[in-house]
Amino acid sequence: MFTGFASDNTAGVHPRIMKAVLEANTGYCRPYGFDEWSEAAISEFRKLFGEDAQVFFALSGTGGNVMSLRTMLRPWQGVICSDVAHINTDESGAPEWVGGVKLLPLPADEEGKIHPGQLARWAGDIKDCHHATPHALSITQTTEFGGVYSLEEVRALTAEAHAMGLVTHMDGTRIANAVASLGVDVCELTRNSGIDILSFGGTKNGLMLAEAVVVFRPELAEDFLTMRKQSLQLVSKMRFVAAQFTEALRDGLWLENARHANEMARYFASELNRLPHMEARTPAANALFVRMKPEHMSKLMEKYYFYEVDHVRHIARLMCSFTTTKEEIDAFVRDAAALC
Amino acid sequence: MFTGFASDNTAGVHPRIMKAVLEANTGYCRPYGFDEWSEAAISEFRKLFGEDAQVFFALSGTGGNVMSLRTMLRPWQGVICSDVAHINTDESGAPEWVGGVKLLPLPADEEGKIHPGQLARWAGDIKDCHHATPHALSITQTTEFGGVYSLEEVRALTAEAHAMGLVTHMDGTRIANAVASLGVDVCELTRNSGIDILSFGGTKNGLMLAEAVVVFRPELAEDFLTMRKQSLQLVSKMRFVAAQFTEALRDGLWLENARHANEMARYFASELNRLPHMEARTPAANALFVRMKPEHMSKLMEKYYFYEVDHVRHIARLMCSFTTTKEEIDAFVRDAAALC
Amino acid sequence: MFTGFASDNTAGVHPRIMKAVLEANTGYCRPYGFDEWSEAAISEFRKLFGEDAQVFFALSGTGGNVMSLRTMLRPWQGVICSDVAHINTDESGAPEWVGGVKLLPLPADEEGKIHPGQLARWAGDIKDCHHATPHALSITQTTEFGGVYSLEEVRALTAEAHAMGLVTHMDGTRIANAVASLGVDVCELTRNSGIDILSFGGTKNGLMLAEAVVVFRPELAEDFLTMRKQSLQLVSKMRFVAAQFTEALRDGLWLENARHANEMARYFASELNRLPHMEARTPAANALFVRMKPEHMSKLMEKYYFYEVDHVRHIARLMCSFTTTKEEIDAFVRDAAALC
Amino acid sequence: MFTGFASDNTAGVHPRIMKAVLEANTGYCRPYGFDEWSEAAISEFRKLFGEDAQVFFALSGTGGNVMSLRTMLRPWQGVICSDVAHINTDESGAPEWVGGVKLLPLPADEEGKIHPGQLARWAGDIKDCHHATPHALSITQTTEFGGVYSLEEVRALTAEAHAMGLVTHMDGTRIANAVASLGVDVCELTRNSGIDILSFGGTKNGLMLAEAVVVFRPELAEDFLTMRKQSLQLVSKMRFVAAQFTEALRDGLWLENARHANEMARYFASELNRLPHMEARTPAANALFVRMKPEHMSKLMEKYYFYEVDHVRHIARLMCSFTTTKEEIDAFVRDAAALC
Repeated sequence: MFTGFASDNTAGVHPRIMKAVLEANTGYCRPYGFDEWSEAAISEFRKLFGEDAQVFFALSGTGGNVMSLRTMLRPWQGVICSDVAHINTDESGAPEWVGGVKLLPLPADEEGKIHPGQLARWAGDIKDCHHATPHALSITQTTEFGGVYSLEEVRALTAEAHAMGLVTHMDGTRIANAVASLGVDVCELTRNSGIDILSFGGTKNGLMLAEAVVVFRPELAEDFLTMRKQSLQLVSKMRFVAAQFTEALRDGLWLENARHANEMARYFASELNRLPHMEARTPAANALFVRMKPEHMSKLMEKYYFYEVDHVRHIARLMCSFTTTKEEIDAFVRDAAALC
Repeated sequence: MFTGFASDNTAGVHPRIMKAVLEANTGYCRPYGFDEWSEAAISEFRKLFGEDAQVFFALSGTGGNVMSLRTMLRPWQGVICSDVAHINTDESGAPEWVGGVKLLPLPADEEGKIHPGQLARWAGDIKDCHHATPHALSITQTTEFGGVYSLEEVRALTAEAHAMGLVTHMDGTRIANAVASLGVDVCELTRNSGIDILSFGGTKNGLMLAEAVVVFRPELAEDFLTMRKQSLQLVSKMRFVAAQFTEALRDGLWLENARHANEMARYFASELNRLPHMEARTPAANALFVRMKPEHMSKLMEKYYFYEVDHVRHIARLMCSFTTTKEEIDAFVRDAAALC
Repeated sequence: MFTGFASDNTAGVHPRIMKAVLEANTGYCRPYGFDEWSEAAISEFRKLFGEDAQVFFALSGTGGNVMSLRTMLRPWQGVICSDVAHINTDESGAPEWVGGVKLLPLPADEEGKIHPGQLARWAGDIKDCHHATPHALSITQTTEFGGVYSLEEVRALTAEAHAMGLVTHMDGTRIANAVASLGVDVCELTRNSGIDILSFGGTKNGLMLAEAVVVFRPELAEDFLTMRKQSLQLVSKMRFVAAQFTEALRDGLWLENARHANEMARYFASELNRLPHMEARTPAANALFVRMKPEHMSKLMEKYYFYEVDHVRHIARLMCSFTTTKEEIDAFVRDAAALC
Repeated sequence: MFTGFASDNTAGVHPRIMKAVLEANTGYCRPYGFDEWSEAAISEFRKLFGEDAQVFFALSGTGGNVMSLRTMLRPWQGVICSDVAHINTDESGAPEWVGGVKLLPLPADEEGKIHPGQLARWAGDIKDCHHATPHALSITQTTEFGGVYSLEEVRALTAEAHAMGLVTHMDGTRIANAVASLGVDVCELTRNSGIDILSFGGTKNGLMLAEAVVVFRPELAEDFLTMRKQSLQLVSKMRFVAAQFTEALRDGLWLENARHANEMARYFASELNRLPHMEARTPAANALFVRMKPEHMSKLMEKYYFYEVDHVRHIARLMCSFTTTKEEIDAFVRDAAALC
């Protein structure tokens, strides 16, 4: 069973990242993130986001998102998000349980995006004691349906959110793929476009186990270290997490990985679209959505591990990662071609 | 500043463990623990604890403890523990917040232990609706004060706990050091001595970032996987956590590491006790408690990073790890000797 | 401003209920529900629901619902409900925060109902660790949109829920109005139709401050008393809550009140429907939904306090209570007639 | 079984309070506290505490305390309290569960008090990420052991707390008895002595079911209404709660009730102390602690319902309420005398 297209987290670790982990194994150091590797990694983040960016490492994407929610919100407040948001659908209730907040969903469009006009849906709850108080907006970049918000789209959403008094969060588990797709500066796409807190993903982009929360408004990060420990996102040997980020960020490896994954997805789409019985949406980033006949899907699933994400219209999700090769894609396309 | 004695988590990773992590980096695999490395590691655990032991990996000691509490208890129940228990004093309120339970402390003795007679303190609350219902006992092995419960002590505590209708948990962050100290079988010391759930520590014993919860009564592990994800203890690339345990357990490396740490602590104690102005308690495992004059402590702290754990009697804690050397100890002892 | 149609909780207390409260004020008694008034009230409930019904008083509808969720669910589980369910939309996040569970909404129909076929939407999450585990179904009777589930509808839903391994809850804040509307036995409509736990409303039906949770499967009520205290639903002078229920249930006052409210709503609808510019849906119970022109709505709102529940189609909700009179309705109808 | 001495909550409701409840039953009004009775009651509170005092009604003492904690603290913060504090020992874990905070106990003295010097115990945790951050102090007035903090004692505690950056809370479930005992102004004893938030008790002082939280620093009450609803402390027919307070406060009935209870306790003590085999501590307020032989205690418990609060030294607690009579006390004293 080939698992390489199921997600970008079925891949291993980029060799340079693994080497960095190995090289961090040099004798004793202070635990819990008070070490030189953590300092170095934070310094790399600040080169991207500004010297006053507050940076906190996390162990999983869910961990980073939940901490972002906790630091933004008090427990009677809620976060507006799309109904397909990872925080709403794929985090086992951790945002509610550990985050202690209510999710206020809005219907996403085909690309998984929400739009400024929709926020008004929750505005009336802000001063009504019978409802959780909307106090934050969270958008996912790239979205759960493979979409990428443009600079303008991000700015329009954050402007409306701020006008409503909301704090803004970007779930950037795949922020690298969005940056690579748009060809913009990451600070431009986030901080400069009105994002207050960013979950910055590493694991799906060739790292082993490394996520970060970057806070652009210091007053939103008060007591973050204690909150992180309480959120079960602190490990003693933090250097092995931090070292991964230093290596990924210091010379652009993170973007190189994302660019490769995006490119492979586009190649995958164009190759599949040559087949009459496969209908792939042009990927905005590294996720490919392909419509096919149910019997074709079943057949392919015998050899490839991947998900059907729309059981009505029969759409499969295929993802590319930093390590996807044209050969792997070609093999799949050959198998798909043979179905006809 | 030498940080090697501050804790057993200031050390790096054992070379064999690091090699195992490196070797797990071979292409794609299913994420979230449904991979062959996880299977192999679980299999090693089952060789130690029986084929029906339920094994779940965690990312931190606090993570493992909190999941143990969650699976044992409903949110209006409480866990009896010592007042110096790590869950009570060093987990930033995570047992209450993520665990959702009340801690019911009992005064520990000098070695950090509690004793059967003390449990009755909370018995009256079991059927009284004005108090959280005591429903579990948690003991730490080795204790926070470096003590090791004997087989008999564990059995006496679990017998009394079970008689009261309680479930029993052992916080085994340093279980390896206790097993090495007592020279008993780990299953004998835990499962066969009445422990229902064990937090099995790896990180403090030469692993990078690897803890496990081992459940001996399957009915206590229902829905554990969902609960783990919700507890922010699931990572996609779980193979890199699991591979560490396989290597540690397959031929006894975990015990070898612990034995070395314990031995170094005993050597450290005997060397320090040669000095008239140092008074070290004979260590039961790898933690050394040394009484010294405040001015000596201050002087040593200029060069060595370690904690004063009793500010009244001026007792310092010095810990040894799998990688502590006699040379490191000798250097400290020389510096201590020079103070007189 | 006339507030009598805004909700059935703007009314005061039925004189017989107030008299019962007054008469409970006779000297000392044991606090916290261990008193003869509580016993008497529980006994009245058992006449309705069977001798083994477990009965617990609560202070608010939200309190009763949250306790029902807590006793049914562990914190990584979720409850399937309609997207307009009171627990989802009007309890300020208390089900998530105090209940500690995730809500799993399904789109409601025009009457606020959900239907058996819809439950499958969440079935896939039961064994998938990335999602809260669906473990309960909650339906509201009468619904938030004034609908009443028939006996057959309740049975079809609970049968499907039980087949999926779910526990079933009925939010019966207005159960009296449903029973009065259908003309069936309350036990038939709940316990005998597959409901496991019932929130039984009193406050909206002429009581002062009195709700109850009735549990039909004793194993679901373990430690309920402790959980109730922890849920802030226990008061010391519980007799003044209990006495209300005894009076309401002992000779059918609760049904009489509900019948009156329902009758008034039907009268109100038929009177309004005589007017060409008012379009009232025939009420199933005591809630009336009336479509009218926005300018008519605004005008009426100057004199009457009520809610517009659909801002697109301009539908107002008008509710009748145990104390609504034809004179009050006639006055409103006259004011509505005068708008044309 | 005579239950009148078990607690001050075994009494019924003062006739004037009951009358006020009855008189509030006049037709329709806006629900959820937006009514004229609530306004009137808030106005009475402001006469006592200043025009900018924020007042919120609650349903139980535990409810008021938990809301006070929630509004003061974020979930990774903790509250310093005495180890015998009601929030720590008698609220079933609600402060941890609904409050979402960690309790940081200090050993109380014989009277149930803590003292300024003790607070330093937790100071070190304020900036240490491994511990819940101490952020509030809560003291109980009168204490759980019947003690009354003097003006000076309150001021010394709040001064030290504020110097540490803590917010201060007074659990005033029996604040009336303390005010009556000290003969000071209630605002002097609370707000003017450095208290930031006060739980103001009614139920134990002759009301039916009425508590209040009074917040003296408006920034601590943001979104309180939503938080109250989420804390299950909001009822629709709030007027029946509010009306009780208006009656209690408008002409001093609350103090009259407390004075009577205190007086009865002093009388009770002096009468019992005439007996050679009874040893009553002079009561500071309305709680009497009496040492007696175990066999005498058992005998008296056959006829009187009360608690033994110290099973080692055999101390019984007997409480007086607004409705305690000399005849009731004399009867008990006669029964006690007959034991010899």
